[in-house]
Amino acid sequence: MIYIRKANYHETDQMGVIHHSNHLKYMEEARIAFLDSLGLSYRKMEEEGMISPVNHIELDYLSPILFGDEVYISLNIIEYTGVKISFEYTMTDKDNTKTYLKAKSKHCFVKNNKIISLKREYLDIHNTITEYYEANKTL
Amino acid sequence: MIYIRKANYHETDQMGVIHHSNHLKYMEEARIAFLDSLGLSYRKMEEEGMISPVNHIELDYLSPILFGDEVYISLNIIEYTGVKISFEYTMTDKDNTKTYLKAKSKHCFVKNNKIISLKREYLDIHNTITEYYEANKTL
Amino acid sequence: MIYIRKANYHETDQMGVIHHSNHLKYMEEARIAFLDSLGLSYRKMEEEGMISPVNHIELDYLSPILFGDEVYISLNIIEYTGVKISFEYTMTDKDNTKTYLKAKSKHCFVKNNKIISLKREYLDIHNTITEYYEANKTL
Amino acid sequence: MIYIRKANYHETDQMGVIHHSNHLKYMEEARIAFLDSLGLSYRKMEEEGMISPVNHIELDYLSPILFGDEVYISLNIIEYTGVKISFEYTMTDKDNTKTYLKAKSKHCFVKNNKIISLKREYLDIHNTITEYYEANKTL
Repeated sequence: MIYIRKANYHETDQMGVIHHSNHLKYMEEARIAFLDSLGLSYRKMEEEGMISPVNHIELDYLSPILFGDEVYISLNIIEYTGVKISFEYTMTDKDNTKTYLKAKSKHCFVKNNKIISLKREYLDIHNTITEYYEANKTL
Repeated sequence: MIYIRKANYHETDQMGVIHHSNHLKYMEEARIAFLDSLGLSYRKMEEEGMISPVNHIELDYLSPILFGDEVYISLNIIEYTGVKISFEYTMTDKDNTKTYLKAKSKHCFVKNNKIISLKREYLDIHNTITEYYEANKTL
Repeated sequence: MIYIRKANYHETDQMGVIHHSNHLKYMEEARIAFLDSLGLSYRKMEEEGMISPVNHIELDYLSPILFGDEVYISLNIIEYTGVKISFEYTMTDKDNTKTYLKAKSKHCFVKNNKIISLKREYLDIHNTITEYYEANKTL
Repeated sequence: MIYIRKANYHETDQMGVIHHSNHLKYMEEARIAFLDSLGLSYRKMEEEGMISPVNHIELDYLSPILFGDEVYISLNIIEYTGVKISFEYTMTDKDNTKTYLKAKSKHCFVKNNKIISLKREYLDIHNTITEYYEANKTL
């Protein structure tokens, strides 16, 4: 999936570039749009009492994003175990001539303050993710 | 009450000043510190199911805040009815030679999605606020 | 002009709504998109050394914005003097059945740390704004 | 060095915890306070035309930070080459009974859009950092 995001003025800092904390926000937006595209609404998941906190993030800042830039965020699942899920992100410009960022994030699923297995407790969601993961696995 | 707040790098924008949305965050921090100083913990209020949303804000931006500046925020209650509360804020530098911002905010109190009267439902809190308000009223 | 903006998860607070400081960011985005639609690129204006700081803002928070909501921001110029410009904003849902916010903002134009008159120093920009303002004035 | 930071309400999200993008802001604040404690003012460095962008960040989110929590951020230099510098961060509560986050960040130094060697171009700064690094190296 590609999520497109225009960089906003209020996200810049006095270095004249998008502040590096915003890349995490862009990644979150892409992740939520991606889940939506699979028919998994994060809003609905939360309404049913489930959350998916971030456990680990790694970011390589390769080129600064400037105010007004259109950022193309491609996202893929790189690991899914039924309990943990990991995503990989690449942010580029439209023509893919400039790479802004490469990143990874790892998440679990929590209900009633306990880590749960989607495989055991939300088989529908588990199957949807598994199907996508298997079909898009990069060898 | 005076709440002192150092302006952070991540709050700047590419104009080279603290972005104007952060002033609302500084005001919120000052408001919460002020309630704390009265013995009213906002964290505890929320744990008891009460929230205090913002209804109205007015801001006059008088002088830009720069990264590293120490901002002195003085805060006063300018109206309290038992149902609504209004605050007034002045942000200056340490020596009061520069005024960054003058602002006002108006709030109500909500429980179970309904506006409540502190006077009727939280008499302790009502009395604490009333006492402060009466003692610090500017004529 | 209508600027459409989806409310993001990272903009929520623990009250379960979009934090009230983000409304200023939505307003800024709408303002910049509006200037773009007039052929006035804020990015280009800054590259030529001009900035347009905020002098005054007033906000009436009428209904909370929730994560995932599509916010329709309509914007109009309510005053333009050649030196100062004021905007009016209304944020609603798609069907205009719910109003989230009504707000106003006032701005000036600054170059080399001095307030300038667009009328005297940037006649092109002045004429573009005047034309729009006169054509869209609400009586 | 230990940098102490109270978690703010406006930093929470609707999960009821400090949003994970804010940890990067806390790290930046700690880094700037640390440089200050060495006599190296980041504000002054920028005024002289030097910036220090982020190249790489890794974060392990171990325990959620809640509104009102006092976060103790300890920071150390784990690598310094004269051209690149890496920091390590640990965020805990006051009594060190809870660890919120462990993280690393890598930075370079840039002047006139070029990566520079502090060793060659800012020997004073280079010596200050080297001295601290050698004295606090963990074996």
